[in-house]
Amino acid sequence: MLKIGIFGATGYTGAELVRILVRHSRIKISYLSSNQHVGKRFSDVFPAYSNILDIPCSEITTNVDIDVAFTALPHQEAYKVVKPLLDAGIKVIDLSADFRLKDYERYRSWYGEHPYFSLTEQAVYGLPELFRNQIKETKLVANPGCYPTSAILALYPLLKESVINNETIFIDSKSGVTGAGRGLSLKTHFCEVYGGFKAYNVTKHRHQPEIEEVLSSSGKNVTVLFTPHLLPIKRGILTTTYSKMKELVSEEDIFNIYRAYYGDEKFVRLFKDELPTIESVVGSNYCDIGFKIDIRTKTLVTISVIDNLTKGASGQAVQNMNIMCGFPEEEALFLPPIFP
Amino acid sequence: MLKIGIFGATGYTGAELVRILVRHSRIKISYLSSNQHVGKRFSDVFPAYSNILDIPCSEITTNVDIDVAFTALPHQEAYKVVKPLLDAGIKVIDLSADFRLKDYERYRSWYGEHPYFSLTEQAVYGLPELFRNQIKETKLVANPGCYPTSAILALYPLLKESVINNETIFIDSKSGVTGAGRGLSLKTHFCEVYGGFKAYNVTKHRHQPEIEEVLSSSGKNVTVLFTPHLLPIKRGILTTTYSKMKELVSEEDIFNIYRAYYGDEKFVRLFKDELPTIESVVGSNYCDIGFKIDIRTKTLVTISVIDNLTKGASGQAVQNMNIMCGFPEEEALFLPPIFP
Amino acid sequence: MLKIGIFGATGYTGAELVRILVRHSRIKISYLSSNQHVGKRFSDVFPAYSNILDIPCSEITTNVDIDVAFTALPHQEAYKVVKPLLDAGIKVIDLSADFRLKDYERYRSWYGEHPYFSLTEQAVYGLPELFRNQIKETKLVANPGCYPTSAILALYPLLKESVINNETIFIDSKSGVTGAGRGLSLKTHFCEVYGGFKAYNVTKHRHQPEIEEVLSSSGKNVTVLFTPHLLPIKRGILTTTYSKMKELVSEEDIFNIYRAYYGDEKFVRLFKDELPTIESVVGSNYCDIGFKIDIRTKTLVTISVIDNLTKGASGQAVQNMNIMCGFPEEEALFLPPIFP
Amino acid sequence: MLKIGIFGATGYTGAELVRILVRHSRIKISYLSSNQHVGKRFSDVFPAYSNILDIPCSEITTNVDIDVAFTALPHQEAYKVVKPLLDAGIKVIDLSADFRLKDYERYRSWYGEHPYFSLTEQAVYGLPELFRNQIKETKLVANPGCYPTSAILALYPLLKESVINNETIFIDSKSGVTGAGRGLSLKTHFCEVYGGFKAYNVTKHRHQPEIEEVLSSSGKNVTVLFTPHLLPIKRGILTTTYSKMKELVSEEDIFNIYRAYYGDEKFVRLFKDELPTIESVVGSNYCDIGFKIDIRTKTLVTISVIDNLTKGASGQAVQNMNIMCGFPEEEALFLPPIFP
Repeated sequence: MLKIGIFGATGYTGAELVRILVRHSRIKISYLSSNQHVGKRFSDVFPAYSNILDIPCSEITTNVDIDVAFTALPHQEAYKVVKPLLDAGIKVIDLSADFRLKDYERYRSWYGEHPYFSLTEQAVYGLPELFRNQIKETKLVANPGCYPTSAILALYPLLKESVINNETIFIDSKSGVTGAGRGLSLKTHFCEVYGGFKAYNVTKHRHQPEIEEVLSSSGKNVTVLFTPHLLPIKRGILTTTYSKMKELVSEEDIFNIYRAYYGDEKFVRLFKDELPTIESVVGSNYCDIGFKIDIRTKTLVTISVIDNLTKGASGQAVQNMNIMCGFPEEEALFLPPIFP
Repeated sequence: MLKIGIFGATGYTGAELVRILVRHSRIKISYLSSNQHVGKRFSDVFPAYSNILDIPCSEITTNVDIDVAFTALPHQEAYKVVKPLLDAGIKVIDLSADFRLKDYERYRSWYGEHPYFSLTEQAVYGLPELFRNQIKETKLVANPGCYPTSAILALYPLLKESVINNETIFIDSKSGVTGAGRGLSLKTHFCEVYGGFKAYNVTKHRHQPEIEEVLSSSGKNVTVLFTPHLLPIKRGILTTTYSKMKELVSEEDIFNIYRAYYGDEKFVRLFKDELPTIESVVGSNYCDIGFKIDIRTKTLVTISVIDNLTKGASGQAVQNMNIMCGFPEEEALFLPPIFP
Repeated sequence: MLKIGIFGATGYTGAELVRILVRHSRIKISYLSSNQHVGKRFSDVFPAYSNILDIPCSEITTNVDIDVAFTALPHQEAYKVVKPLLDAGIKVIDLSADFRLKDYERYRSWYGEHPYFSLTEQAVYGLPELFRNQIKETKLVANPGCYPTSAILALYPLLKESVINNETIFIDSKSGVTGAGRGLSLKTHFCEVYGGFKAYNVTKHRHQPEIEEVLSSSGKNVTVLFTPHLLPIKRGILTTTYSKMKELVSEEDIFNIYRAYYGDEKFVRLFKDELPTIESVVGSNYCDIGFKIDIRTKTLVTISVIDNLTKGASGQAVQNMNIMCGFPEEEALFLPPIFP
Repeated sequence: MLKIGIFGATGYTGAELVRILVRHSRIKISYLSSNQHVGKRFSDVFPAYSNILDIPCSEITTNVDIDVAFTALPHQEAYKVVKPLLDAGIKVIDLSADFRLKDYERYRSWYGEHPYFSLTEQAVYGLPELFRNQIKETKLVANPGCYPTSAILALYPLLKESVINNETIFIDSKSGVTGAGRGLSLKTHFCEVYGGFKAYNVTKHRHQPEIEEVLSSSGKNVTVLFTPHLLPIKRGILTTTYSKMKELVSEEDIFNIYRAYYGDEKFVRLFKDELPTIESVVGSNYCDIGFKIDIRTKTLVTISVIDNLTKGASGQAVQNMNIMCGFPEEEALFLPPIFP
């Protein structure tokens, strides 16, 4: 049994890691950090987890006896912990943005200074469906952002196979409120959200450079315009993308391309005539992908959905751990969606 | 006091007409039709309206003593009633799609045959902010669709002033469930909607030709790709549009164009730095419009919001009646949003 | 035109006062206080009110030129303002709990010290359906709590007419989240509320003594057990009460008692066979009341519903102002519910 | 591997059985009936289950090769199937109400005639925490109703230990909409439910006799008044009960009684100072129980919560199957709640 530590255990992605990891047969959660709740039991912070995980939360320290660390801390906090953990020989899956970008100037302009940026050289972007082989070999996974997961899985094969234009892809995403975390804010106050809907950070969301950098690894220099919106629900992202096709091909052709990339994947489900919906992935680690061609405008529309806390964060993090540790990739991740 | 009839009074747009008209000082609701609820009082069908409107619902008949008719019937049903009403000298505001399109082939391919299509010649598209003068003169208003209202108000000035390209405008809309009406369907069953989100009718929604035809009246031949989504809320539409700018101008310039068109309008509110949100228009007749320029991709992003039942249907219908009848345009329509 | 001031204008009851008062034909809002937002326009704090109320918020001062004050401040803050306002000859409708209880020990044990408690002698409990005549004469109205409004209107006639036992009435209430105000708290964080439901302050909610004191003014010494719950919606209270009947009478008899008390009331609607629902009063100033008799257990079950921000707070406050100032009681309060 | 059949697989309890059973290591789902969807794959009816359960739905037939049957059919339909299944030696867990009541007159007056009522003699009420030993021995389990599960688990120990009076226990329950099933109805139409709340079937809900009969098996002749309400959420029941205490005992004493009954139970969690909430059990098989004593009125208030589809239906059904078949009781039921 590997010993697992979760840094930042009492945020929502921390709780979701717990929800998944308590079912894992080859690991044991042996350390939880939470600056806000030192000394409290995890189940005191989240009564939902009573009788499930009752161990106490500790202060942040990297002087712990663990084999694998999940760092679910804010960016600019994460790297402070990741460095000593790696130095101590501990495998790290970092859920922050600190090791996702490869270009320092880009990181700095969106997030700030980063004294350990050189570590990104060994970091692998943790999207198993695209980078599984590198994940197997690394000790540091940069777990993808939630929006990027939904957008990249839908677009990467289309770019790689030169189906769509790489200039100005429009990405219109809609996310549930858990994506904003557990910190208090008027923007996530119940009465300001329920029954409403809004766009935010239009033209300037931090996931835009992340999406562009990873999509550009397809070999094309990709430019996207990314617009996030806040759905009045807890979990789930639906991403609609619009790209001009290089030339008109059939929907059958597109489906075959997706199948070539994801046909064997356990956590990607392809939709042919129907379109995927958020309600069909809540609580699961699936990314469901569908699409339509608009012949008149020669546009390919893709629709992809994930649970932002699972495939968009903690589920994918566990998937990465399974790959890094040589466990079966599905271990603890067979999570049928909660429907209804 | 003018006498008003509502055809199809027990659907959601019918109920919204009642909510608004009972506050109108110059009219009296004297006839309600409802095939489903003949003989029942309106307040038996909608207990919310107890003590507010307790008159009974009748069968559909055009042999009624009224001055103005609101026809809130399904398309292909509406025209059957509109014809005899006009013949009887009654002013008609039709909330269906039957008189919105000017091109018969387009109508037929999206909706079916239409024996009275020639009436569309006298019909005016009821968007007062753009066609007020014609509305004043007509006896038949084709009340706009909900999605088109939100999209056209945002895009028309930009097209007319040649700010944006007329080819392939992407319109990504999100609507509350009242837009689907009161008819039962698994798609609008509570447990299939709550906590979820989905796209529907992608590339083939009937509001696409309506949007194109009206926008093309700006003088440009406009092509749009329209994608509607279903929000898990009752009321409200938020429409995000993406258009390539002909050349980069400042956000100040864009704001001034909007101000030139809508500065004096009572029911359009312009946002400069902030972006509009659905929660700020629920229950009101406002269309709020905001925008951002993405310099990198030379794209203009607009965000416009309405309450689909009010400015998107019944509120706009009353606004049209006020104009047709020479009443103050705001009469009964000063409806501050319900927030929170 | 009377000049109105709102103290604590940027909380939810403040905003609801604005929503209602902007439609009032005999007053003008001329002062808004908000410690948090001094200098900001009301519509900057609540974009929903853009173009509706754009005057700035000021610091709290009682040195203002107004005729009537609404004090929508926290208890223990309100009395500090009410005293000088009264001294200056200004009529006051206080939405806090500071002047609702007549017994000082009771006030002190639930809320704390109160240096101006003697003012409660002139304060009238602002439930117009029961205390209209006193409200006409007073300069200080203690506006009722939201839960008490729903419970007292349902129970008072039954107690006064000796239909039910005065010992141990069970009051099981369910309220939307706006009742908790606009202050940030994990308890009202969207993701902690949506899709959930909970009881709170069981056996120890501050509205229990208020309900008991007012109901006991019926002449019986009433004891209640009050249990509030938090509904995952924004607006509305539904209160279910259980009382043992002194002797079995018919539902017709009960209905007639209610009719004798409320038959002429504009803001109470009585339901005979059907039961009232929250969705039928949202946005309105109605209290809807229904009931059932359980013969087996000789119990009378009442169900009453209000919008907690309207009849449960700001609507009732305006109703009180109308009575105090000799305006028509319905002025600005004909607010058809938003349904759907 | 036992072979399992689900009758009525495409209702919500059917889908929930699938969600749970696909994780069960000792069984295989080999038959699904659905009159509405014969020939369709289960995952066509519920896209959420794509790649999870893709076998087709069949017509109802009892001529099937299965070892255990779950009958998730409407009452009065279920008994038609249960009889031949039992005759064929198949173990049956019936989720309908057809075998829950032991008194024929009571059954007839609430549900109608029942030609196979004599089978109820061998039926065991499937509440494992109270009747585990009988469940082990039977071939027919009458799976409890959702409301009764929440009420009985909270009240049974208190009655058995003579803590509370058995006359007139008030049970005020609030349930999510999945309890009403997947059938279409205006009452469960999204726009009629969202943002609202209502009581229904007051004094005459079918679960009242069920609760009374099972509680009376404690040895006391119990009378309850049961009031259900409809919460605008998908899953979860919170039940608040009010009972007069025979004599005042401490909260510590009450807690110890509960601990004596449920201390070793895997699916009951006891709360001491805090009160349980719906959001902490959604998706899980837990029943969480808490309580408060109101000394003034000598009343014991209990709060118990379950997920109505899991512990209130399909989870409990699987728990019963595990007991009947000698499997570990927790098999497939370690379902951490989805929180947030």
